[in-house]
Amino acid sequence: METKREYTYRIEPRDVDFMKRATLMSLADYILHTAGEDADRNGFGVRDLNLHNASWVLTRMALETVRMPEEYEQIRITTWVSDVTRVMTTRNFEVLDAKDNIIACAVTNWAMIDISARHILDLHTLPAYNSMTQAFPPPAAMPRRLPAPQCNRETMHTVAYSDLDFNCHTNSVKYIQWALDTLPIGLFGEKRFARTDINFMQETRHGDQLTIASATGDELLFEIRNAAGEPACRMAFRME
Amino acid sequence: METKREYTYRIEPRDVDFMKRATLMSLADYILHTAGEDADRNGFGVRDLNLHNASWVLTRMALETVRMPEEYEQIRITTWVSDVTRVMTTRNFEVLDAKDNIIACAVTNWAMIDISARHILDLHTLPAYNSMTQAFPPPAAMPRRLPAPQCNRETMHTVAYSDLDFNCHTNSVKYIQWALDTLPIGLFGEKRFARTDINFMQETRHGDQLTIASATGDELLFEIRNAAGEPACRMAFRME
Repeated sequence: METKREYTYRIEPRDVDFMKRATLMSLADYILHTAGEDADRNGFGVRDLNLHNASWVLTRMALETVRMPEEYEQIRITTWVSDVTRVMTTRNFEVLDAKDNIIACAVTNWAMIDISARHILDLHTLPAYNSMTQAFPPPAAMPRRLPAPQCNRETMHTVAYSDLDFNCHTNSVKYIQWALDTLPIGLFGEKRFARTDINFMQETRHGDQLTIASATGDELLFEIRNAAGEPACRMAFRME
Repeated sequence: METKREYTYRIEPRDVDFMKRATLMSLADYILHTAGEDADRNGFGVRDLNLHNASWVLTRMALETVRMPEEYEQIRITTWVSDVTRVMTTRNFEVLDAKDNIIACAVTNWAMIDISARHILDLHTLPAYNSMTQAFPPPAAMPRRLPAPQCNRETMHTVAYSDLDFNCHTNSVKYIQWALDTLPIGLFGEKRFARTDINFMQETRHGDQLTIASATGDELLFEIRNAAGEPACRMAFRME
């Protein structure tokens, strides 16, 4: 019988916030790390793709949490690819605690791009294409397309050395950080991030002067814009 | 025969910069994480101290690097306490690669404080006092006291949610990040951080508006000041 592949982590002091619970950034980071590890071990990781001048690009992410893992808590993250179209794969995750409770889950969409030409490649050309998917359904609703929010608050951020990943672009998790850093600190103790939707729309680079625009309603909405005013990332956080 | 205790880590994608090498922040983080683990395992960790309303405070750090570990490289960090006075312990570190080369080392000073009263406690009162030290010498010169630099450049930073550690103070590693983020990006490819001295002088908290002041000479000098103009942290980076 087919099983979901599983990766084990321990929440370290550097992963937690002032409440000694994992931040949404570190949870997202473990999830994305699991994606990288699992793709690597199954023959379609970034290192394999790089050999053919290709790479993965995360386009959308949905993340739901029941509770945040605590400092020193051991978590297991299961992951599986449920679908591959010509332009996009859907990779899913469940975060389990020691008692097998699902404390968080995520659904992500990825495209494969040509690194030089920056255009999208046909996923059916991947050697691993036929063996990539597993027949488990996604654990939550697909990440949704976010429209431009009507923002009433803006702060600025210039992309710095510490924001960059190995591709020399802003690390995906940084967009979450910039959004959360604008929130009142009391919120983190009062509510949890029940559902987060993220659209990664355009890469940003060192020195880019970004606007972090936000709007408050039933959800906390964010749009990160580059100096040309184009959206680089949109986020919607539903706190409960 | 006595040996140095040893901890093994792998440099993960989130630890590296655009050159796919560990950042100074992640190297410092692994070193400080090792300090925490080793103290915990030997009966004088933060969790033990917390039971007596006490905690460790990092006061100074010196960090020398020969080369930065690469992405996915496995490193071992050895650690030992070489000295305990009434007011300060000296904890040392060597960072080794798979061929047993020492690629970095560090010397740190720690004080024990009463959490409520915020005053320094006598280390001779620690139950583990007699068994804390090992007779190996420090691997580098002691972290030195840094005078106020004559700064000619200033940027601002407001302490945010993501800057806080479990104590609700700014994470020590963030001071390094703020300094490095002001440097020209080309420097990271051209030179290495041969020697870094850091003085942690005062804690900072959420919402604190800090000035990151710097001066360039033989060394890159930084002073992080709080809104009252008092130094919170001074750093000196010698790049070669």
